[in-house]
Amino acid sequence: MKKNILTIAFPLLFAGSAFAQNKDSVMFRAIANEVLLHGKCYSWLDYLSNKIGGRLTGSPQAAAAVEYTYQLMESIGPDTVYKQECMVPHWVRGAKETAKILTTQSGEYAVNICALGGSVATPVGGITANVIEVDSLGELKLLGKAGLEGKIVFFNGAFDETEISTFAAYGKAVVQRWYGPSMAAKYGAIGTVVRSMTNTLDDYPHTGSMGYKDSLPKVPCCAISTIGAELLNKELKVDPAARFHFEMSCKTLPDEKSYNVVGEIRGTEHPDEYITIGGHLDSWDQGQGSQDDGAGIMQTMEVLRTFKALGIKPKRTIRFVMFMNEENGTRGANKYAELARLHHENQIAAIESDAGGYTPRGFGVDGTSEKKKKVIGWKNLFLPYGIYDFSSTESGTDVEPLQKQGTLLLGLMPDSQRYFDIHHTAADTFDKVNKRELELGAAGMAMMTYMLAEYGVN
Amino acid sequence: MKKNILTIAFPLLFAGSAFAQNKDSVMFRAIANEVLLHGKCYSWLDYLSNKIGGRLTGSPQAAAAVEYTYQLMESIGPDTVYKQECMVPHWVRGAKETAKILTTQSGEYAVNICALGGSVATPVGGITANVIEVDSLGELKLLGKAGLEGKIVFFNGAFDETEISTFAAYGKAVVQRWYGPSMAAKYGAIGTVVRSMTNTLDDYPHTGSMGYKDSLPKVPCCAISTIGAELLNKELKVDPAARFHFEMSCKTLPDEKSYNVVGEIRGTEHPDEYITIGGHLDSWDQGQGSQDDGAGIMQTMEVLRTFKALGIKPKRTIRFVMFMNEENGTRGANKYAELARLHHENQIAAIESDAGGYTPRGFGVDGTSEKKKKVIGWKNLFLPYGIYDFSSTESGTDVEPLQKQGTLLLGLMPDSQRYFDIHHTAADTFDKVNKRELELGAAGMAMMTYMLAEYGVN
Repeated sequence: MKKNILTIAFPLLFAGSAFAQNKDSVMFRAIANEVLLHGKCYSWLDYLSNKIGGRLTGSPQAAAAVEYTYQLMESIGPDTVYKQECMVPHWVRGAKETAKILTTQSGEYAVNICALGGSVATPVGGITANVIEVDSLGELKLLGKAGLEGKIVFFNGAFDETEISTFAAYGKAVVQRWYGPSMAAKYGAIGTVVRSMTNTLDDYPHTGSMGYKDSLPKVPCCAISTIGAELLNKELKVDPAARFHFEMSCKTLPDEKSYNVVGEIRGTEHPDEYITIGGHLDSWDQGQGSQDDGAGIMQTMEVLRTFKALGIKPKRTIRFVMFMNEENGTRGANKYAELARLHHENQIAAIESDAGGYTPRGFGVDGTSEKKKKVIGWKNLFLPYGIYDFSSTESGTDVEPLQKQGTLLLGLMPDSQRYFDIHHTAADTFDKVNKRELELGAAGMAMMTYMLAEYGVN
Repeated sequence: MKKNILTIAFPLLFAGSAFAQNKDSVMFRAIANEVLLHGKCYSWLDYLSNKIGGRLTGSPQAAAAVEYTYQLMESIGPDTVYKQECMVPHWVRGAKETAKILTTQSGEYAVNICALGGSVATPVGGITANVIEVDSLGELKLLGKAGLEGKIVFFNGAFDETEISTFAAYGKAVVQRWYGPSMAAKYGAIGTVVRSMTNTLDDYPHTGSMGYKDSLPKVPCCAISTIGAELLNKELKVDPAARFHFEMSCKTLPDEKSYNVVGEIRGTEHPDEYITIGGHLDSWDQGQGSQDDGAGIMQTMEVLRTFKALGIKPKRTIRFVMFMNEENGTRGANKYAELARLHHENQIAAIESDAGGYTPRGFGVDGTSEKKKKVIGWKNLFLPYGIYDFSSTESGTDVEPLQKQGTLLLGLMPDSQRYFDIHHTAADTFDKVNKRELELGAAGMAMMTYMLAEYGVN
């Protein structure tokens, strides 16, 4: 009997699985064709980049981006579209943002800096002081008050070029930007300058957020371009008494009302199981926020368009979310997760695209080993589309607040080599985006969303 | 006994294999670090692109490229460096290259074209004729002499955007460029215009070679930008009697003497087994030939530099070859293979990089199933470097002439999405190259070269 059961059931099971795989691979092909032949994400991103532009939380451009994506989503026509209110920080850069190196040897000359998001201003006229250069946070403690009081700390720890993923290099270096200002202030430093977070040698300062500790003095902090950082390093080697001057007029205004933009397609079989997919709507102010994260926003919108165009009726409910305020506060994502908890939503999985619209290579997957195993089991379906790597556990800042609820988190993982060349700079503009790369990422997200909606995570 | 042998031998075998894998993975890491931290290929490519520029076979720039790479190779210091003489075709574009569309509705207006490499000139004053638009070669036979005589044939078959690899789309479309002119001439057409070979809608005409059949009249043939092709298509829909005019003064001069540049590191254990790696030194004239194929040339040079820098003594002989005349004749590659046969060289494997200096994704591998299996068995070593795809059998035009000798052929396979945006145009310039992407490709080639030199192919 046992033998008979095996003889009969095994081929049936196998045939069933083969049938499902075949049905899914046909759907994957349909999704890819739809996106590559009729995709709109590239032209939508053109509009968001060139007609709205950089859209830091609280700015008129952020409000315009909310309105544009709300109307765009309505025109595509999911079952529901709404704005989800949240209060957001409102930091503005201000008109003044200059710096110079002062040496006895080379005289004085200007270098390119920009304020880190959230920084306080310098006094009018700026600050000028001797410079202490460090390569890591750890050195601050060793230098102590004796070494740092009254000084400007120059964090010059560079990207580790031997990391194959540039995100790994970023992760190691960015602690200087985030923790540096308060750690330096703790020992009496009066300001900080951080080397821009990039692999390249260029003259764009790369901005980004930092975190003041409430218990410590808030000192002004800026990023210097890597070319500027190399110059400052060179001058300090020749003349350790070289000084640095910078002036910034940035400030923090009262919180503003803003919104996540949310669309929903109700599931046909398990409407109470939610899959959230999204990117973030806000961007830094200097460029157009095209790769960070206009790409993720418009890929999410493309998934919605593709589901509608192909007439896919998902078994589980899909939420398409344009999160507000990823760059300097995560307020939109926190609000979304808070409301999901409040409404007892069963958020089974969430996917974010916030690593650029470059050719997709994989998905980061973070959750219980059983759920991860199920998702990674779909890998062969993705291979024909160049999506092969499911080894990372990185997802995205906006989906992470759902993790407490046991949500399986996923992050689209595109090729990372060019991302930090333009990240958080004036050079993050639409011309850096390649149409097919953006579309392939959107197709990958649509495929993963389809599988999660079809099969769930258990 | 049998059991005992297994018990003893199996762990030993396993340990041996694990030891080798570990030794190799340590070497892979050393190679990656050397290239990413100390790589020179990017600055060498800057020189080749910006100081020498486009270098079509027979041009002074091609001669300069021979001299530059010869001297560069000597400075790196393999065991031998030499030039390998070959006679090459010498086609020049000429000063005149203009076209216009003539309609009753919109009047006359200029569009961007360029001569296909090898084309004959038009008569002075150009040719003007009615246009027959086709999407494939097959339509010509159906139209026949009645439909084509005295006409200009417009090949407007576009890239198939549903192909994930853009090289697959190129392969399907490029037959129009190569075979179109003579097939059209067979039915009495007086000239041909081909839609540029690209995924993008842009205003650069993309040149490339074509092949006249000696038995048929040689008609002038040009490429039109995709924007121009869309315009011509639109005009013909409105007014099928719209005419096309083009004038070109290109010509073919007598063959010139040129060279492959070859370097060699002798193998320590099997010096008579050769591994050839290379790219092509010539490029089209309009841009700087940075991605096609300055990238492959400088990656090859980087492999040599890395072997020397790390003190790797390969067990088998490695030849580093800068092939001349890939774009319009393959004369250098044919000469190299001919001499290899003449000298009874055992060319066990050959790798070409001629698909751009973008992030590497895999290697095409072409040879007997046993040899392929051996190489594909090394896959896990490459995975940490993003090189995962060994499913293609594409190698490269310059290594293919070795195939008759039973050589295992390999081609570095980078991400293909951006390649045809600039391929064979004035936009193939150094600024399109990303330093880390170029270096990762060089590292991948060095790793594969190391494995082939260490373990052979049998």
